[in-house]
Amino acid sequence: MSKKLTSRAEGYSKWYNELVVKAGLAENSAVRGCMVIKPYGYAIWEKMQAELDRMFKETGHENAYFPLFVPKSLFEAEEKNAEGFAKECAIVTHYRLQNDPDKPGKLRVDPEAKLEEELIVRPTSEAIIWNTYRGWIQSYRDLPLLINQWANVVRWEMRTRLFLRTAEFLWQEGHTAHATKAEAIAEAKLMNNVYATFVENFMAIPVVQGVKTESERFAGADETFCIEALMQDGKALQAGTSHFLGQNFAKAFDVKFANKEGKQDYVWATSWGVSTRLMGALIMTHSDDHGLVLPPNLAPNQVVIIPIYKNEEQLNAITEVVNGIMKDLRAKNISVKFDNRDTFRPGAKFAQHELQGVPLRIAIGARDLENGTVELARRDTLTKEVVALDALIDKVEGLMTEIQDSLFKKALDFRNTHITEVDTFEEFKTILETKTGFVSAHWDGTNETEEKIKELTKATIRCIPLEMKAEEGVCVYSGNPSKSRVLFAKAY
Amino acid sequence: MSKKLTSRAEGYSKWYNELVVKAGLAENSAVRGCMVIKPYGYAIWEKMQAELDRMFKETGHENAYFPLFVPKSLFEAEEKNAEGFAKECAIVTHYRLQNDPDKPGKLRVDPEAKLEEELIVRPTSEAIIWNTYRGWIQSYRDLPLLINQWANVVRWEMRTRLFLRTAEFLWQEGHTAHATKAEAIAEAKLMNNVYATFVENFMAIPVVQGVKTESERFAGADETFCIEALMQDGKALQAGTSHFLGQNFAKAFDVKFANKEGKQDYVWATSWGVSTRLMGALIMTHSDDHGLVLPPNLAPNQVVIIPIYKNEEQLNAITEVVNGIMKDLRAKNISVKFDNRDTFRPGAKFAQHELQGVPLRIAIGARDLENGTVELARRDTLTKEVVALDALIDKVEGLMTEIQDSLFKKALDFRNTHITEVDTFEEFKTILETKTGFVSAHWDGTNETEEKIKELTKATIRCIPLEMKAEEGVCVYSGNPSKSRVLFAKAY
Repeated sequence: MSKKLTSRAEGYSKWYNELVVKAGLAENSAVRGCMVIKPYGYAIWEKMQAELDRMFKETGHENAYFPLFVPKSLFEAEEKNAEGFAKECAIVTHYRLQNDPDKPGKLRVDPEAKLEEELIVRPTSEAIIWNTYRGWIQSYRDLPLLINQWANVVRWEMRTRLFLRTAEFLWQEGHTAHATKAEAIAEAKLMNNVYATFVENFMAIPVVQGVKTESERFAGADETFCIEALMQDGKALQAGTSHFLGQNFAKAFDVKFANKEGKQDYVWATSWGVSTRLMGALIMTHSDDHGLVLPPNLAPNQVVIIPIYKNEEQLNAITEVVNGIMKDLRAKNISVKFDNRDTFRPGAKFAQHELQGVPLRIAIGARDLENGTVELARRDTLTKEVVALDALIDKVEGLMTEIQDSLFKKALDFRNTHITEVDTFEEFKTILETKTGFVSAHWDGTNETEEKIKELTKATIRCIPLEMKAEEGVCVYSGNPSKSRVLFAKAY
Repeated sequence: MSKKLTSRAEGYSKWYNELVVKAGLAENSAVRGCMVIKPYGYAIWEKMQAELDRMFKETGHENAYFPLFVPKSLFEAEEKNAEGFAKECAIVTHYRLQNDPDKPGKLRVDPEAKLEEELIVRPTSEAIIWNTYRGWIQSYRDLPLLINQWANVVRWEMRTRLFLRTAEFLWQEGHTAHATKAEAIAEAKLMNNVYATFVENFMAIPVVQGVKTESERFAGADETFCIEALMQDGKALQAGTSHFLGQNFAKAFDVKFANKEGKQDYVWATSWGVSTRLMGALIMTHSDDHGLVLPPNLAPNQVVIIPIYKNEEQLNAITEVVNGIMKDLRAKNISVKFDNRDTFRPGAKFAQHELQGVPLRIAIGARDLENGTVELARRDTLTKEVVALDALIDKVEGLMTEIQDSLFKKALDFRNTHITEVDTFEEFKTILETKTGFVSAHWDGTNETEEKIKELTKATIRCIPLEMKAEEGVCVYSGNPSKSRVLFAKAY
């Protein structure tokens, strides 16, 4: 809170990094690429978890927990998976430290305690889970198997950024098994839709649902559904993915079931996940130069109340009124914090809660008590008004919905004005260099063109939108025929 | 469900292992010593988590998340901690796999991708957390710092058993920082008391609160408080610990604060944890030869309803009545599952829910519909009765409390009749060989005697109970003077 935040115009990246740390969301740790998620950041993540968990259970899923480690041999089993993932991973090779004979007081790895087979710290759990499912699935009566896991995973990323790309991150990974291809595809679509609903309704971030091109697809998947969001700087962010895995893992791990006719068949699979990366999307969609802006659904405290007083007597009188307000707000399921710390002045408290994005701030002083009013400040619009005490609760309740909706609408307007249809490659390049955002363009469907465009512009195909209308055209790069537009963007 | 469970008399260990797997709680994985927590087991763990998390927050704690890895040098910083923990750990030495040039299709560790400093997979997080706290604590205004983390940890145990001792396990670890010694001791006691309240009221397991002897203390702690439970086979199980860490970690990681007078001082610390080991305590306290017995507070489904029908018409009529029952039970916050799977017969369903310890089972058939009754079966007593439909909801509601209380009372009676006061070493040995349980005996307070008794009897001092009355006596082994009795037992 000491120094002012760098503005977005001065440097978007710098603004982001400073905001994450100053708002108490996360910070870098002593371990390269691994973050510490601080209490305020974790409280927001917990709200996301609770709502997602509720939605998963409502759609019939159960939670379970699988091992952190994956033996190397299991990784090799699904070839495409191994190619896509196994390379940059944390690898456990030993299981004991010992006192270093050469350096008193120091420890070293015991060379005798070498594992027979190296263990990979899971970058994702398909391999260990499908190896387990083999024992769980014998007959159609065991299907569908609808399981989710909340876990930490590790990918040895070279360039890391808090929440957006970290070596260790928290996520959930759903892994389901089905008797038919159609059921598995329906599941993958359903969960992509659950993600879209959650991100739009709860996080107030508009997303495009689509499928990935082959080159952007999850290794080991036959089809990857995704939700793509647009950040304030015009770069896209993949906010969640849901994979139809075909029978790839079932074949790699020999998971068969007896159908109703008694015939053996490989099961069909999906997997789907969202991670603490969503925190990055949240920050970069709504926040401003004053700090974090939180949609009420995700705010650990939706309302903060700050007393302005000169003496104990005034504080006592204020506290009595505040207790009533808090009781009434809580009765309406609105979370509220009374910031009556005597170790900070009101100005410091205002600054802190603004930086931390508390949706509504109520200030109440001795004169307010006399007038039967409070000062109500809205974080998203930075507007203040004086509200009569007897109108306060209804006012706050109304604002909870209004702010949530307004944040979504603002983000949606931004997103919609940043989807540009282009038909020439010159235009394509110009948009990416000036306005940025999504570029909607025809593409000939080949990896080569996709790769070439990426090389020339750094833009990738974010997705082939599910709702994109069929439209004959020619590829913006090759001039070859195309059946529909796809969305390109530079991306996080 | 295929074969009958081994009885406890036949083999307590075998019974336990079979029960854990057959009831769908957990199973061994492809990774040595690591378990898979299956959906039913995880649902019970989630209930524990939810209640504990509520209790932690109610006592002012916030959640956060710290890295999975601890650099070797941080481990060495707190010497006693390093001695106690750092030896048997999973160690990450490399960060990349590559295609094995000698074995096509196989992967090997890339020898070039060796970490400069090895990373230990956390066996506990004091080191990484106190290294972080150094940046968070400057002044008395930053204290107390009351933080909890839900996480997985790894200890390379040689002999593992599902839930009781696994290489990876799930737990929570609280890590707090305080301005004064008295505050830190009060916190350590408070959290031990939170554990005792949770385990007794929620899990229906009676515990003794006490402190550990020096040799059983957590490495790096000045005092370890604990809760000790007694299993059906007469062996004790440490169910939770809460440590007063003095200034040991503050000194090792140089965490100082300016007090109100502006003077610099090291902060005082606590840490406390319970783990998935509690699942083992739950199973071994209440279950019987028919399978799991769950206290209603922890049961994922408190009531299961099974329809008995010969045709669709009967099922429809039953379903209509069941829908009403479920609505009424849920209105009273009682969780209920209608097991209307058409892929299993009623007998198989009865067996499954008995094995899985669902507290109450309601069976309802065509004749019940005519009579306006249901059959109500109680899992803990294995008793059945016919109940009129219009009395059912009240009956079930009453039984929820009655079963919870009855399970606690039964366990308490067993525990109390298995605490034996002895005054001679002959008696001491006889009790441990025959009746087992806790042995309450005088001890001279020396490590040597404690060690000798352990060597001769395999019994350890479980704790010095907080509520043990002062009583002059002589040590059961050495004959030296003693001021109070302590509790010995063989332990898990």
